[in-house]
Amino acid sequence: MKKICISELKNHVGESVTLYGWLYNKRSSGKLRFLILRDGTGYLQCVTFKNSVSPEVFEFTDKLTQESSFEVTGTIREEARATGGVEMDVADLKIISHAGEYPITPKEHGVEFLMDHRHLWVRSSKQVAILKIRHRIVKAIRDFFDERGFTLFDAPILTPAACEGTSTLFETPYFDLGNAYLTQSGQLYAEAGAMALGKVYTFGPTFRAEKSKTRRHLTEFWMVEPEVAFNDLNDNMDLAEEFLEYIVQSVLADRQEELKILERDVKFLEAVKRPLPRITYDAAVEILHKNGVEFEYGNDLGAADETIISNQFDRPVMVHRYPSEVKAFYMKRDPENPKLALAVDVLAPEGYGEIIGGSQREDNLDLLLERIKEHNLPEEAFSWYLDLRRYGSVPHAGFGLGLERTVSWICGLDHVRETIPFARMIYRNTP
Amino acid sequence: MKKICISELKNHVGESVTLYGWLYNKRSSGKLRFLILRDGTGYLQCVTFKNSVSPEVFEFTDKLTQESSFEVTGTIREEARATGGVEMDVADLKIISHAGEYPITPKEHGVEFLMDHRHLWVRSSKQVAILKIRHRIVKAIRDFFDERGFTLFDAPILTPAACEGTSTLFETPYFDLGNAYLTQSGQLYAEAGAMALGKVYTFGPTFRAEKSKTRRHLTEFWMVEPEVAFNDLNDNMDLAEEFLEYIVQSVLADRQEELKILERDVKFLEAVKRPLPRITYDAAVEILHKNGVEFEYGNDLGAADETIISNQFDRPVMVHRYPSEVKAFYMKRDPENPKLALAVDVLAPEGYGEIIGGSQREDNLDLLLERIKEHNLPEEAFSWYLDLRRYGSVPHAGFGLGLERTVSWICGLDHVRETIPFARMIYRNTP
Repeated sequence: MKKICISELKNHVGESVTLYGWLYNKRSSGKLRFLILRDGTGYLQCVTFKNSVSPEVFEFTDKLTQESSFEVTGTIREEARATGGVEMDVADLKIISHAGEYPITPKEHGVEFLMDHRHLWVRSSKQVAILKIRHRIVKAIRDFFDERGFTLFDAPILTPAACEGTSTLFETPYFDLGNAYLTQSGQLYAEAGAMALGKVYTFGPTFRAEKSKTRRHLTEFWMVEPEVAFNDLNDNMDLAEEFLEYIVQSVLADRQEELKILERDVKFLEAVKRPLPRITYDAAVEILHKNGVEFEYGNDLGAADETIISNQFDRPVMVHRYPSEVKAFYMKRDPENPKLALAVDVLAPEGYGEIIGGSQREDNLDLLLERIKEHNLPEEAFSWYLDLRRYGSVPHAGFGLGLERTVSWICGLDHVRETIPFARMIYRNTP
Repeated sequence: MKKICISELKNHVGESVTLYGWLYNKRSSGKLRFLILRDGTGYLQCVTFKNSVSPEVFEFTDKLTQESSFEVTGTIREEARATGGVEMDVADLKIISHAGEYPITPKEHGVEFLMDHRHLWVRSSKQVAILKIRHRIVKAIRDFFDERGFTLFDAPILTPAACEGTSTLFETPYFDLGNAYLTQSGQLYAEAGAMALGKVYTFGPTFRAEKSKTRRHLTEFWMVEPEVAFNDLNDNMDLAEEFLEYIVQSVLADRQEELKILERDVKFLEAVKRPLPRITYDAAVEILHKNGVEFEYGNDLGAADETIISNQFDRPVMVHRYPSEVKAFYMKRDPENPKLALAVDVLAPEGYGEIIGGSQREDNLDLLLERIKEHNLPEEAFSWYLDLRRYGSVPHAGFGLGLERTVSWICGLDHVRETIPFARMIYRNTP
C-alpha cells in the first residue's frame, strides 16, 4: 500500500488516512489537543477531540514530546485557515519512538549551538524552506542547460600540479604521484569539453582554503560553469541574463510557500527579468566616485564597492570589461583596448555581491603563452590546456555561478552557512 | 542572430545556413571534396563541388587538416543515407584556426596514450556518445527522484574524524582543525536529511583511496544515494527496481544513436523491466555451489562470484539478506534471523557486478551503540549520528548507485575510465 504524505492531502479530503511523521509542535484547549505533524512534505494540524479517541490515546497526547515520531489515523477535512488547506480529525495515534528532551526549542539559540546541532536544525521549518528552494534552484540550473542542448561535463575534483599557487588550495597525498589538489574551478576542463561537445556545463563542489571569515565564504561550495564554443562576450552576457531570469522565475513559480516562511520580500525577485543592465567597469568606477568613494581606477571592486554599484539598480547588474591586470590570465583582451579583459561579473542586488564571474577566453596560442609567462605560471602544467589552442582553437566564453551565494540572495539570508546542508568554513568541518 | 547547429538541420532543409565546427574527417573523389564537420551536436557531410565554390576555397579543402576549425555556408539537402538525414552543398568556407598535426589519428593508439590526451580524446565519436549517455543517465536519476517528491540534500565532501579507519581515505590539512577526509559516502548525512525532509537524495563525487587497479575502480566517482524515512527493506527494493528500469528505459528512449555508435547490443537493456528477480544470499550461495564454485557460506561475494550469479538472469538481480558480519555496522538485522543484515546489493548483468548497495538502517539506539562498540568505532565521532535515534527515530532505508559503473554497463564498456570526462585512478591524476 502506497504511503500518503501531507503534501498530497488535498486529494484525500473526506477520506480516512494514516500518516507518519514527527511532532513539530502542540497546544491544548479543554477537551481538544492540537498536534502539528511534520513529515518533510508539509505540516498538518491533527485535532484530537477527547470524545473521539480512546482514553489512552487522549492521555498519550499530553506525553508526546517535540520530535517524537508517531503514526496517526483520521479523517481529512478542508480548513481554509490552515497551511495546506486541510486538517485531520484524529481517530487513532500510535507512538513510533519517544524523543528525549529536544535540544532545539522555540527559544533563541546562538548560531554556533545551532551549527553544532545542524543534523537536527535542518528539521526546522525555516531550514526546510531554504533546502527546498536550494533544490529548486539546482533543478532550474540543470533544466536550463539541458533544454538548450548543453552536455553535462563533470570536471575532476582531484587535480594535479597547483596551477595558481597552493596558498588557497586543499591538498592530499595521492599514492605515488605526489600531491593532488581539490579543484577551485572546473573551467579549464570545461573548455576541453566545449571543443568536443560545443556547449557544456560542469556542476559540482569546488574548494577554497581561504582564511576569509565573511558571510559570503564557504570553503566547500557548489559551482555551475557553462562553456560555449563560438560564443563571445556579448553572447556570454545574453546567456547569463537569460539564465538568472530562468532561475529566479522558476523559484517564484514553485516556491511561494517557502519564500513566505522566510518572509522574503519577493518584489526584488519579481524584478529579475531581461534585459539586465550592462555597464562597463569604467561606468562602475564613475558610480563609485559620484557616491563619494575614494576608489582608484584599476583596482578590483571590493564587496563594499559592489554594494554601492548594485544599489543603483532594481535587478542584477552586469559589469564588463575590467582592467586585465585584476583578472585571470586566460581572459581575452578587448581588441579595442588591450588594457581591458573581456570579463563580466554579475552583481546581485541588495548587497549580495558577485554571483557570476565569466569571460571570453584567450583563444590565441601565442598570446596565451605570453600571459602564462607574465603570471609566472608553470607552462608545463598547462600543456594540455594549450593543446586546445593548438588543435582547432575557436572563440569561446563561459562563466561560473556560485550556488550558495545565489541561494542566499534568493532566500534573503544573512549568511551562506544556512544555504547548504552541512556548511564547511574556516572554523567548522563538523558535524 | 541565433547560431544553428547540426542537430537542428532537419528543420532547415532547402535553406542556406552557416555552421561552425571542426573537421572530423575528409575524403576526395575527382571534382568533389567530402568534409565531415562536427560541432558537438552531430556530424554533417559537407559536399564541396569544384564548380560551386571559388578556386581558393576548393584548393583550401585539400589543406584543411583534422580538427581544424572552420565556418561553412551552404544549402541543406535531405539525404537518407547520411547520419542525421541531411547533407550540405557547400557554397563558401572560411578557416577559423588551422590545427597542427593532430595526435589522435584513425590508427590504433594505446590506452595510456589516449588517457594522456584525454582533453583531445573526448572529441572522438565514441567518447562523445559515452558522455551524452552519461548525461542522460544523470538527468534520469535526478528526474526520477524529483518527480517522486524527494529533496536534494547535498552531503559534504570534507568530513571530520575518519569513522572507519583512514587506510582508504584521502586526507587534507584543514586549517587549525587537524585533518579533514574526502567523503566515501553521503549516507549518514542523508539519514539526517530523511528525518527532516522525509525523502532525500545526495548526488555528488565520492572518493576511495583504494590501491585497486581493476576495470571497475576509480578513486573519484559519482554516487547517488536516496534515503527514505519509513521505508523498510522491501520498500527499498521496490524503489531500486523502479529506479533502474527508469534509468535504462530513459536511455533507450533518447540515446539510440549513441548506443549504435557504441555497437551496444540493446537486447540486454530492453530486458530491464520490473519486476527484477530477488534472491536471498542463501540462494545466491546455492547457485555458486551448483556451478562448482568452492564458496564458503558467510563470506562476501567477490567479483567472480557476482558474475556467475548474475549470468543466471536476463536482467539485474537483487541479492538480499547478507550475513551481517560482512556488512556495515549501521545495517539493521533481520528480526527473523539476527545473523543476517537487511541489506540488498543489485548485480548488473553481463558481468558488470554490483551497481547498487543498500539496506534498511538500524533505528534502535541501543543496538546501534552496540554495533559501534563491536566494530571498534569511535563513539564520539558518531554522536551526531546517534542523535538521529535519540530524537524521533523511525524505520528508514536507502541505497547508493555508482554512476560510472552504471554508465559502463549501459554503454557496454570494458573499463570505467571512459565513463567520466577525466578519470582518476591509482596511477593517474592528469590531465
